[in-house]
Amino acid sequence: MTGLLPNDRLLRALRRRPVDSTPVWFMRQAGRSLPEYRARRGDADILETCRRPEEVVELTLQPLRRMPLDAAILFSDIMVPLHAIGVPIRIEAGRGPVIEPPLRDVSGLERLRSLEPETDEPYVAEAVRLLVKELEIPLIGFAGAPFTLASYLIEGGPSRTFGRTKALLFKEPAVFDRLLGVLADIVVAHLRAQVEAGVHVVQLFDSWAGVLDRDDYRDMVMPHTARVFEAIAGLGVPAIHFGVGTSHLLDLMRDAGGDGIGVDHRLPLDDAWRVIGHDRAIQGNLDPAVLLGYWDAVERKAEDVLARAALRDGHVFNLGHGVLPDTPVEHLQRLVDLVHAETERPAP
Amino acid sequence: MTGLLPNDRLLRALRRRPVDSTPVWFMRQAGRSLPEYRARRGDADILETCRRPEEVVELTLQPLRRMPLDAAILFSDIMVPLHAIGVPIRIEAGRGPVIEPPLRDVSGLERLRSLEPETDEPYVAEAVRLLVKELEIPLIGFAGAPFTLASYLIEGGPSRTFGRTKALLFKEPAVFDRLLGVLADIVVAHLRAQVEAGVHVVQLFDSWAGVLDRDDYRDMVMPHTARVFEAIAGLGVPAIHFGVGTSHLLDLMRDAGGDGIGVDHRLPLDDAWRVIGHDRAIQGNLDPAVLLGYWDAVERKAEDVLARAALRDGHVFNLGHGVLPDTPVEHLQRLVDLVHAETERPAP
Repeated sequence: MTGLLPNDRLLRALRRRPVDSTPVWFMRQAGRSLPEYRARRGDADILETCRRPEEVVELTLQPLRRMPLDAAILFSDIMVPLHAIGVPIRIEAGRGPVIEPPLRDVSGLERLRSLEPETDEPYVAEAVRLLVKELEIPLIGFAGAPFTLASYLIEGGPSRTFGRTKALLFKEPAVFDRLLGVLADIVVAHLRAQVEAGVHVVQLFDSWAGVLDRDDYRDMVMPHTARVFEAIAGLGVPAIHFGVGTSHLLDLMRDAGGDGIGVDHRLPLDDAWRVIGHDRAIQGNLDPAVLLGYWDAVERKAEDVLARAALRDGHVFNLGHGVLPDTPVEHLQRLVDLVHAETERPAP
Repeated sequence: MTGLLPNDRLLRALRRRPVDSTPVWFMRQAGRSLPEYRARRGDADILETCRRPEEVVELTLQPLRRMPLDAAILFSDIMVPLHAIGVPIRIEAGRGPVIEPPLRDVSGLERLRSLEPETDEPYVAEAVRLLVKELEIPLIGFAGAPFTLASYLIEGGPSRTFGRTKALLFKEPAVFDRLLGVLADIVVAHLRAQVEAGVHVVQLFDSWAGVLDRDDYRDMVMPHTARVFEAIAGLGVPAIHFGVGTSHLLDLMRDAGGDGIGVDHRLPLDDAWRVIGHDRAIQGNLDPAVLLGYWDAVERKAEDVLARAALRDGHVFNLGHGVLPDTPVEHLQRLVDLVHAETERPAP
């Protein structure tokens, strides 16, 4: 597949092969920072939008018309496969996913069933098929990791402490384990459907794993995440394993899987890469909040990230988390150009 | 002062001197986990309660009647000194401090003035004086650190990304710097008043510093925090420097100051202590969510913390953050007994 894309920098970087410029894309590059996104989406329910392939295509393509990104990411939400099997989810603006009633015990498990992508969410594969026909850059598919999905189901809404998630982990470890097992199956089916429809890369978002200590992550979460990576390893596309606030878990997340490990802004990139090991690619790690300031701060911090990556094969430039809604589009555009210009090297 | 208290374990531990048992106390030990607290507080505004010394005394003493804690912590809130100078703050149940309007630019700075504890918040010193007459254990006074206070003022309400705080940092670094300077003066005045009234220890809560990367913490936050620690170093009481999600900042926080560094549950205690260095005391680090589960999990995780502390002089047992509201009181009680029993050694 790699050879068929005019721009395969992302695929090469994730395989730690030489590139002519460091690839760059942004989490939430299709999103509220773009006026055309706000105009198109209006007040529509995001989960409804995700069910309309022509809308998904348009929203996925919007940022690519603005700047020469090295990847597209399927416009979607990590809640899509759970919504598709009937979990009562709505996405509230400024608040995130709300699940009513939340899943708090074994009876909640009965509300989950396995995902049959062809019948439950045919619109996902359809959007992917439409996109890959048009794109000259890799298309990234994604899913939430079992723990992060579980935390949304259990909390039912936003949380800072994840107290209810951990309460289930500590009080009903067998239920917690079954829940993550069921979710891992759903995640694998969801990712497999995207790969079979044509995505070139997958990213697993374990956004909230960083709230766990090392023992709990290793004992209760890592086996399920590892099973997801094992299942998709045979599909022939590189995988990125992403989390936030995971400075204390990077070696364990690496062991769980992923050709590239996504890191937020907290650790300097070189320190993080040293912990992960240079036999893996790394994705990151500019603080998205920097883009809310003046360009000179963006430039200074972006150059620091690039200096720490030191043109080593295997760096994918990205923000440490999603683009914030108030981000000036111009900063994203200039940042893409900066990354490409400052990392240009002889074509491999 | 140390010699006058029948139980001075906390003071000894913070000075890294031998103790007969590891001292233990809990952040939010006076709080919603206690039925008598909920009964006493009812729906009263917490900032109003903080202005009534007899209520503060009662709420501070409540947990001590339940279990043989090695420290009391003044019932208060980090917003008290800001409320005392007229910042429009209310504490919403389940949401935390809400500031309307929030501070977003240089005009917001004008709403702040210096704190004169004797006239602005005489009730703080009064409560401390009443308490130290009664207590046979150290009383801990506290304040929010300049950055954490600033983040509340700027966000105006709860935030996961702290995007507005960082936007000010990157967009108006001079305003941000002035804000933290003003707040540092307020913090020093607030802590000094508590020490002069008789508290034996102070804790500085930089609860949200962990959202920053190392460079921003070092350049923009650390100088103000260091100034607070320098100012209180001459007051003769040991100081604890606490944060959450600070695995990547521990060495910098140590350099900013504190006889003891408070750490959350994310890093194992021995790893965190190694980073901090054994020439400082450490406080922590059981995940408060563990107490929501069954006792055997609490026991197992508490014993792991103690094993990692290895009876080294300078460990203060605590949770990694405040007691969660749904915590069974019995778990707190058994945990205090466990820590004392398992760490008993010949009297120094």
